[in-house]
Amino acid sequence: MKVLVCPSGFKGSISPDTAADCMEAGILRALPTAAIRKVPLADGGEGFAHALVASTGGEIRHISVVGPIGTPIHSFYGILGGASVKTAVVEMAAAAGLSLIPHSSRNPCVTTTFGVGQLIAAALDEGVERIIIGCGDSGTSDGGAGMLQALGARLVGRDGQDIPRAGGGQSLLSLAGIDFSGMHPKLKAVAIEAVCNWKNVLCGPHGVARVYGPQKGASPEQTELLVAALETYAVVIHRTLGITIGEAPGSGASGGLGAGLLLIGARLRPRYDALLEYFHLEDIFDSCDLVLTAEGAVDDQTPRGKIPAEVALRSQARGIPVIVLAGTIGHNARVNYEAGIDAFASILQQPLTLEQAIMDTERLLTDGAEGAMRMVEVGRRLNSPAGH
Amino acid sequence: MKVLVCPSGFKGSISPDTAADCMEAGILRALPTAAIRKVPLADGGEGFAHALVASTGGEIRHISVVGPIGTPIHSFYGILGGASVKTAVVEMAAAAGLSLIPHSSRNPCVTTTFGVGQLIAAALDEGVERIIIGCGDSGTSDGGAGMLQALGARLVGRDGQDIPRAGGGQSLLSLAGIDFSGMHPKLKAVAIEAVCNWKNVLCGPHGVARVYGPQKGASPEQTELLVAALETYAVVIHRTLGITIGEAPGSGASGGLGAGLLLIGARLRPRYDALLEYFHLEDIFDSCDLVLTAEGAVDDQTPRGKIPAEVALRSQARGIPVIVLAGTIGHNARVNYEAGIDAFASILQQPLTLEQAIMDTERLLTDGAEGAMRMVEVGRRLNSPAGH
Repeated sequence: MKVLVCPSGFKGSISPDTAADCMEAGILRALPTAAIRKVPLADGGEGFAHALVASTGGEIRHISVVGPIGTPIHSFYGILGGASVKTAVVEMAAAAGLSLIPHSSRNPCVTTTFGVGQLIAAALDEGVERIIIGCGDSGTSDGGAGMLQALGARLVGRDGQDIPRAGGGQSLLSLAGIDFSGMHPKLKAVAIEAVCNWKNVLCGPHGVARVYGPQKGASPEQTELLVAALETYAVVIHRTLGITIGEAPGSGASGGLGAGLLLIGARLRPRYDALLEYFHLEDIFDSCDLVLTAEGAVDDQTPRGKIPAEVALRSQARGIPVIVLAGTIGHNARVNYEAGIDAFASILQQPLTLEQAIMDTERLLTDGAEGAMRMVEVGRRLNSPAGH
Repeated sequence: MKVLVCPSGFKGSISPDTAADCMEAGILRALPTAAIRKVPLADGGEGFAHALVASTGGEIRHISVVGPIGTPIHSFYGILGGASVKTAVVEMAAAAGLSLIPHSSRNPCVTTTFGVGQLIAAALDEGVERIIIGCGDSGTSDGGAGMLQALGARLVGRDGQDIPRAGGGQSLLSLAGIDFSGMHPKLKAVAIEAVCNWKNVLCGPHGVARVYGPQKGASPEQTELLVAALETYAVVIHRTLGITIGEAPGSGASGGLGAGLLLIGARLRPRYDALLEYFHLEDIFDSCDLVLTAEGAVDDQTPRGKIPAEVALRSQARGIPVIVLAGTIGHNARVNYEAGIDAFASILQQPLTLEQAIMDTERLLTDGAEGAMRMVEVGRRLNSPAGH
């Protein structure tokens, strides 16, 4: 039996590739003859670079950059294996992610994507011809202004002076001009693709500051300040560069990083179509009998674009059954049965706290995969001509 | 597909028959065409009478008796449905169970089985020809002396006076004689069988007071007092009635109730052989394709005579797969895969406390049965000639 193992990670606990290893071990305990193909998945946010590097046999590059609150952090980007053109993968959350920001410092008015620009610059310096940028899990709302500065843009204030480097979204309130003359020379020759949620836009009633600001730590006043700042940013971009960006699909991705990426010529791609291509899932689906995926939680939000549902959508179209393992089975999770998921189960084994579950996820997921596969084997045995 | 649903109860939460109803509902959600046979199981302890009544379509009789600490309690016994001779089922725990005793009153020196005798007397008065007595989950250690008194026995002290009625195990310390002349007149004509753990004996190094006294609330001093009292009881029985009872198999069951039952002519039966017969499991096994059972916990003690393992032993011999659902998957539970259980899973869905799990067991078990059955269906689909 050919089994595709394509888990998401369990946020705050284990990465997609560790999850895939655990599931493989569990499945092999139940069915030692299983032929397992592991494709750890990530949706562009945390774990994206490692997942893509793992699935292509690439490499991780370690590098120090300016973190979201302006202090140096250890970060990384990846180089894909087996690509026809040298390709880097940059995960925005690795330089500007929410989880990099202590709770007491969560203020999206001042956090910056400067480090994301540094990661892109490092990839350019290394000579890549293509950069894939994963958006998601951001702790910033600076419209990608920090990233642009790190790549050589001058952002000029009303007083004619440069606005602060890595000053965060609020510094855009005084923006009056943009000068791209000093941009990184290799930017023009590189192909940049960004994986993002196309529904997120920079400005307007559903603008990113309003929708995501509060969960990044913004007070109501800070949210209004950010709304005004990003509005100013869009106006100046239009006047200076002639680009209408405020409601472009994806412009609001990762606190408006999407807008900044559009300015450097990136092609923004809807998340799952891009992921399917990057992870070569289409081909793999066609040669497997069963799909096991996993995510931290399965609930009534899952069908709205979470990895298990997106996987199920495509498996179902091919008649391949999909089983989902989760840490938490949440509210009204049974809607997932309508969304193409054939079966799901929690990996928990006894009453415990979330902290305890997080500490023990590797063991629980391994045991859970074994248990699920054993149930499947019961079914196969029931239906075999010999009866066992 | 014919599915046998034969759960144990979840102690402190739901009874075996409620568990069976939940599992049936869950299975039917996943496979509406399943033909389900429900046989709720209980091991002789709490839930035994209801389970047996439910599986035979019998009736419950409600009655007030003297409880384990001497105060009146609401109790019950059952009349089996469809039996060739009128048969009662008496659950000792319904009149003398540990859970009937508030924690602050747990002292097995004084708790009594008097109410068990009253249940037996009520069944006799109703005219049954056979009584099945379930032992287990007792809160007493009186050697069945209270039961004997309720049925008309005189227990005489060294001073020639009757020892206290319902005086508990410690009152046996002064026992000097036993007089059965006033026993219930119908006792002679009735067939009594008791379902018990044959390994429990009244006296000696593994005597019941020593092995179980502490978990019923006895201090070390109280334990030694009970050991001496039950020893005296055995000596007096031997001298008065000519019966050697101290190490008879099952004599220690339910705090020595087994010994008292032997004195009234009961046949003590090893638990699972008797249960298989009462619940007609042998016949049912032969006509089912799949077995789902359930118990509060599955762990490395399960293979030592717990219901799921006993069910698995017999299913395995017939080549029928067995799935176990549990609240808790405990220490080293994987040994159960060696013991004939094909797959097991916890019904938990998210981090929570034991109290929360107990409150929500019905929903969790229903969902868990659906989930397990859906996994089985994935397997059946994989193996079907059409591929789906």
